[in-house]
Amino acid sequence: MLKVEHIGIAVKSLAVSVPLFEKLLDAECYKTEEVATEGVATAFFRQGETKIELLEALSPASPVARFLEKKGEGVHHLAFEVKDIRAEMARLQKEGFELLSPEPKPGADNKLVCFLHPKSTNSVLIELTQERS
Amino acid sequence: MLKVEHIGIAVKSLAVSVPLFEKLLDAECYKTEEVATEGVATAFFRQGETKIELLEALSPASPVARFLEKKGEGVHHLAFEVKDIRAEMARLQKEGFELLSPEPKPGADNKLVCFLHPKSTNSVLIELTQERS
Repeated sequence: MLKVEHIGIAVKSLAVSVPLFEKLLDAECYKTEEVATEGVATAFFRQGETKIELLEALSPASPVARFLEKKGEGVHHLAFEVKDIRAEMARLQKEGFELLSPEPKPGADNKLVCFLHPKSTNSVLIELTQERS
Repeated sequence: MLKVEHIGIAVKSLAVSVPLFEKLLDAECYKTEEVATEGVATAFFRQGETKIELLEALSPASPVARFLEKKGEGVHHLAFEVKDIRAEMARLQKEGFELLSPEPKPGADNKLVCFLHPKSTNSVLIELTQERS
């Protein structure tokens, strides 16, 4: 894995949390984007080579809505940039980690992504992410 | 804030989780360190400019033991590197964030650190960290 590409944080309301994180990080939100496939609206901040991605659920069926209901606001996932997502998925599966999808899926920010089941990763939801060419 | 300096992850056992994260991150644990003031044993991995810091509680009174009891294993805090920790503490306090100590404290990895109360930061425990000169 190459770096921490982003840290996803579940929030109840981007309208409340975007100004809060602008003050906290002393950085402007440079992009918002809806990801229909995940049922979320996202807002991005830069911190060095890593992004902070706030996530608001767009419907009660969204995984982020279920996370908020169960655990409340807080860190939702850690995303690591990889060079070759299919090779990394194969390596991790061989090491005993459980993939949440057999193929990479389109994610926010023009990426291909795959999540690992947190039961295999010390309860930390891990995302692999590769820039789409 | 300059970058994500590290991501702290609470684990029950470093003996179990260090080999797990070595496989997950495809990176070796390059350092372990006990931080008596926080009641934790730590293990570090590099991912680009950011470190992953696993935290095991050394006693039931450790904040990490209380976190594990309440929330289970998972992301415990996000640490941001700052240039001047006292100036950043003053800026954040003025913006309405609550500091957990009035002065910076010695942390792991030869740093000065200060935590922000998660009730003021969308339930994300935030650490400010500055290299000790």
